[in-house]
Amino acid sequence: MLYPKSLSLLIDNFQKLPGVGEKSAERMALTVLALDEDEVNAFSKALIDAKSKIKPCSKCFVLTDKEECSFCVDKSRNRNQLCVVSDPRDVISIEKANIYGGLYFVLNALISPLGGINPSSINFDAMFKYIEENNIREIILALKSTIEGETTALYIKKLLEGKKIKITKLASGLPMGIDLQYIDSLTLERAITDRVDIS
Amino acid sequence: MLYPKSLSLLIDNFQKLPGVGEKSAERMALTVLALDEDEVNAFSKALIDAKSKIKPCSKCFVLTDKEECSFCVDKSRNRNQLCVVSDPRDVISIEKANIYGGLYFVLNALISPLGGINPSSINFDAMFKYIEENNIREIILALKSTIEGETTALYIKKLLEGKKIKITKLASGLPMGIDLQYIDSLTLERAITDRVDIS
Repeated sequence: MLYPKSLSLLIDNFQKLPGVGEKSAERMALTVLALDEDEVNAFSKALIDAKSKIKPCSKCFVLTDKEECSFCVDKSRNRNQLCVVSDPRDVISIEKANIYGGLYFVLNALISPLGGINPSSINFDAMFKYIEENNIREIILALKSTIEGETTALYIKKLLEGKKIKITKLASGLPMGIDLQYIDSLTLERAITDRVDIS
Repeated sequence: MLYPKSLSLLIDNFQKLPGVGEKSAERMALTVLALDEDEVNAFSKALIDAKSKIKPCSKCFVLTDKEECSFCVDKSRNRNQLCVVSDPRDVISIEKANIYGGLYFVLNALISPLGGINPSSINFDAMFKYIEENNIREIILALKSTIEGETTALYIKKLLEGKKIKITKLASGLPMGIDLQYIDSLTLERAITDRVDIS
């Protein structure tokens, strides 16, 4: 006999989460048993609430609990600047940096012919509609520097040709405060190529 | 603005789990959003069910959803042999090895003067009661080979002096199939000291 049924069911559920194997799921389930009943009720409710309330914004696909997200309705933001990201979490990372004040658009995927993701399966139509509606003047591509990220960036650039929209992408180079010896040569190559004149 | 409220609440809840930091909790919460509604409902229910149904067995402290655990009521097991473990998960590990057919007792802690865990805070009284009631003839101490584990083993051995109960502990030595070069010297020392005559 192994764990009682309701405990193994909980362990199975934890194993649905990314990066959680059998052993971690067991530890998590036993931790839940050690929590207060109120805490477990709150956890249980949080799952249902998040699933039922959180949806992608109907315009820009940022996660929100309203019909339109807080960026789309915020008139104080720079509405001519659009930052394009591939993952909803990237929006939070950029917001935490506290340097960008424009709008966002979440692609939710990157073009990947090998992974079976063609341009037609990405919501570029919604992106163009958003660009037109907001009269966007600059698009910042905050995509990963992988083949998929670069391909998607090139594709967007090509589609916007002749539209008089400035297209930029995030700078590549050394992360702040890191020792040179720990940097991979590809990053170092890029940092040298894109070196900045400070004279 | 960061995540909408119900999403950050879910992230906070995941962070209560062991080994889950902010980033992992974010990934988990977004995975939940991608699950079917039915799956999320089942997950939410599993939390409540496990918390409300799973309790330690009133006699041996093995986790169970009944008043007495399946070991305590199973008359086909060897009821004169008792395996003492410190963690409910250890019971499952031993059951998976499929070699032991006796009873179990879960201490839920090890004596640790530095950690503030004295013998009085461990349920030794319940253990003795269980030993008497079942007329236990052999106790297998399946405790960690740390100072806490060894101290607890010594303490139990001393308390049972004169009771005509055989006390054993798990063999220390090389894990099966491992290369000698990857073994720490303490384990190797023990393996050499406890070498087995095969002549």
